[in-house]
Amino acid sequence: MATLGLIEYKDANPEVRAVYDEIMATRKTEWVNNFWKALAHDPATLRRTWESIKQIMAPGALDPLVKEMIYVAVSVTNQCGYCLASHTAAARKAGMTDAMFAELMAVVGMANETNRLAIGYQVEIDEPIKT
Amino acid sequence: MATLGLIEYKDANPEVRAVYDEIMATRKTEWVNNFWKALAHDPATLRRTWESIKQIMAPGALDPLVKEMIYVAVSVTNQCGYCLASHTAAARKAGMTDAMFAELMAVVGMANETNRLAIGYQVEIDEPIKT
Amino acid sequence: MATLGLIEYKDANPEVRAVYDEIMATRKTEWVNNFWKALAHDPATLRRTWESIKQIMAPGALDPLVKEMIYVAVSVTNQCGYCLASHTAAARKAGMTDAMFAELMAVVGMANETNRLAIGYQVEIDEPIKT
Amino acid sequence: MATLGLIEYKDANPEVRAVYDEIMATRKTEWVNNFWKALAHDPATLRRTWESIKQIMAPGALDPLVKEMIYVAVSVTNQCGYCLASHTAAARKAGMTDAMFAELMAVVGMANETNRLAIGYQVEIDEPIKT
Amino acid sequence: MATLGLIEYKDANPEVRAVYDEIMATRKTEWVNNFWKALAHDPATLRRTWESIKQIMAPGALDPLVKEMIYVAVSVTNQCGYCLASHTAAARKAGMTDAMFAELMAVVGMANETNRLAIGYQVEIDEPIKT
Amino acid sequence: MATLGLIEYKDANPEVRAVYDEIMATRKTEWVNNFWKALAHDPATLRRTWESIKQIMAPGALDPLVKEMIYVAVSVTNQCGYCLASHTAAARKAGMTDAMFAELMAVVGMANETNRLAIGYQVEIDEPIKT
Repeated sequence: MATLGLIEYKDANPEVRAVYDEIMATRKTEWVNNFWKALAHDPATLRRTWESIKQIMAPGALDPLVKEMIYVAVSVTNQCGYCLASHTAAARKAGMTDAMFAELMAVVGMANETNRLAIGYQVEIDEPIKT
Repeated sequence: MATLGLIEYKDANPEVRAVYDEIMATRKTEWVNNFWKALAHDPATLRRTWESIKQIMAPGALDPLVKEMIYVAVSVTNQCGYCLASHTAAARKAGMTDAMFAELMAVVGMANETNRLAIGYQVEIDEPIKT
Repeated sequence: MATLGLIEYKDANPEVRAVYDEIMATRKTEWVNNFWKALAHDPATLRRTWESIKQIMAPGALDPLVKEMIYVAVSVTNQCGYCLASHTAAARKAGMTDAMFAELMAVVGMANETNRLAIGYQVEIDEPIKT
Repeated sequence: MATLGLIEYKDANPEVRAVYDEIMATRKTEWVNNFWKALAHDPATLRRTWESIKQIMAPGALDPLVKEMIYVAVSVTNQCGYCLASHTAAARKAGMTDAMFAELMAVVGMANETNRLAIGYQVEIDEPIKT
Repeated sequence: MATLGLIEYKDANPEVRAVYDEIMATRKTEWVNNFWKALAHDPATLRRTWESIKQIMAPGALDPLVKEMIYVAVSVTNQCGYCLASHTAAARKAGMTDAMFAELMAVVGMANETNRLAIGYQVEIDEPIKT
Repeated sequence: MATLGLIEYKDANPEVRAVYDEIMATRKTEWVNNFWKALAHDPATLRRTWESIKQIMAPGALDPLVKEMIYVAVSVTNQCGYCLASHTAAARKAGMTDAMFAELMAVVGMANETNRLAIGYQVEIDEPIKT
C-alpha cells in the first residue's frame, strides 16, 4: 500500500475527482492508476503533474508511441519498477509490438553500456560535435 | 585526453583499422569519434562494441532516428556528457529537428520526475498492468 | 531474507550486542532494524556504520528532521525501497507531517526533472555562480 | 554553449520575456540563469517549468531553505554539476551557512552509502515499517 | 512473470536451444537463468548478449571471481535486485567467501559515499592525476 | 575551485594537519588530494571519512588492487569524473595494468547493460538463487 494510502474515486473530494474524470476521459478508460490515487493526498501536485503529463505526452513533433517508449527507456535506466510496468502497458496500448519492445530494450541496454565506456575511458568530446 | 590516450588511424594496427574503416563506411563520414579511438587500446572490446552497435542501431521495427533519440534519453538520464553530445549530433544527422529535441527533453525530464514520485509514494503496481 | 541472513540479539556476540544496545538506547526503541541485523555479519562495518550515522544524524547546524528528509530525498532518487521505508518512518517519528512529506516529494520530483533538462540542454554554469 | 544556444532578453519574444520578467521579479535579481535561456527555445516548457518551480519552491509546510537543500541533495546524488552550482548558490542566498552545507554533504554521502549496503545485503523491509 | 514471458527449453526454437545448450555447457549446470529465458523472445539479442558475456567474463588479465565481484558492485550501485541476486550467486560459486562479500559491500558503500562528497564539494581534479 | 575552497597544509589547523600527515604517511606520498583539502572545512567529516577509507581499503579478504578496481567500477557507474580520475590513478599505483583496466571497463559496461535488460524485461529472481 502506498505511503499515504490510495484515495478511491468515491472518497475523493471534488478537486481530486475532477482530475480523475479528466484522466479517464483523456485516456478513454474506466479506471485510474494507483499513481494518481497516491498523489491525490496532495491535490496541487496531482493537478500540476496531470496537466504537465497531458501537455508533454500529447501528439506533437513526436508521436505518442515514441514518447511512451522514451518514458520506458528512462524508467528502465532508473530501475523504476512501477513506472516500467505502467509505461510498458501504455506503450503497448499505443501500438508497441513485441519486436519494437525488444529493439527498445536492446538500445537502452547498449546505451547504458557505452555511457560507462565513455566515462570510464575519460573520452573527451570531439571538436566537431561540441556545442 | 582519454585514460589510455587515443589511437589515430595512422598509428592503428590492421585489426583496429578494419573497424575504423567499417565505421566510416557505415556512417558515410571521413572521421572516427574519440570514443572508438579510446577503445582501440582493447581491440576485442572495440570490435565487439562496434558489431553490437551496428546490429542494434540498424533499421528494424524502430527507425534509426527513434533509436538515436532513445540513446539520448538514456544518456541524459545517466548524466553522460560525452554520450549526450555524440548522440545528439547523431540524432540531428538522422533528422531530429529542434522541435523534436525539445519534446524529447520534456518527456525525459517528466519521466525522471514521475519515476521519483512513484517510488517516493511507494505506489504498488496496479493489478491490470502486472506482468 | 538477507544475503547472509539476519543475526538476532539472542544469537549475537558481545561486540554486536553492544551496538544493538546503543542503537536501542539512542533511538529509545525496543527493536533493531533488519539493516543492522544484516550488517552484523561484519562487526567492523556494523560498528563503523553505526558510529558514522550517530555522528552525522545528531542535531547540529541542521535539525534531525531536516536530516531525515534529506535521507529520504536521496533514497527516492536512488530508488532504494528499503531505505525509503525506513527513513520515511524515521522522518515521521521526528515530526514529518503528511503535508511536509508531500512537499518533500514535490521538490525531489522537480529536482530530478530539472537535473535532466540542465544536462540535456548542455547548459553551461553561469559566471556569477561558478565556484 | 547550450545545445540550442541561449536566448538573451533582448532577442526574446514577448512570451519568453514575460517569464524572464517574472523570474527576476520573484527572485529579486537583475539576471536570469542560463538554464532558463536554454529552455527558452521551447516556450511551453519554459513556462511550465517556471510555474512548477515557483509553486513547489514557495514557502509551505517546508521553508525555502530546506527546499533548496533538498534540491542540492538530489543534484549531488545525480552528479549534475550545473544544478549543484545553481542550487548551492540559491541555498546560500536563502541562508545556508558553511556548517549547514557541510552537514548536508555528510548526510547525502552517508545516505548514498547505506542505500547500497541495504540493497547489497538484500535487506527485507521490517514488518513495523511496511506501508 | 517477465514482460514477454519466459521461454522454456522444451518450447524453444533451435536457435534459442543452441544458446541454452552453450550456457549450460559453459557453466556446467543443468538449468538456465530466467534472464536468458526472458531474452529468448529476441534471439539476436540473446545470442549477442551471451557471446559478449562469455567473452568478457572469461579468465584474462582479471580472474573470473574478481569479474563477478565487479558485476556485483555495479548491480548494487544501480539497485538492480535481479542482477544482484544472480551475480552474488555466481560470485559465491566462483569462490567468494562471506568475508570477501562483506569487504566488497564495504568498498561499494564507501565509494558511493565519497563519489557524492567529491561532486558535492565540487572538487577539481588534481594536476598530477589529470589524464 | 571547490565550493568552500581548498585548505592547504600551511593554512590547516592541527586537527586537519594530523589527518593530512596520516594520509601522506599511509600512502607514502608527499601530497594530499584536493578531495581531502575540500573536506577539511569540516574536520569531523575529514577525520571520519579518512578513518573509514583507511579501514575499508586495507588488505583483508580482498587485496588492495581489487578494492581499488571496485572503487573505479562504482565511480564509472555513477559518472563521477573526479573519483574516476583519482581511483584510476590509485589502481595503477597498486598494480593495475592497461590490460586489467580494459577488462575492468568491459565488465562494468556489460553489467550496466544487463542490469537494464533484466529490469526492462521484468525478470523475476529464479527460485534457486533467492536468498
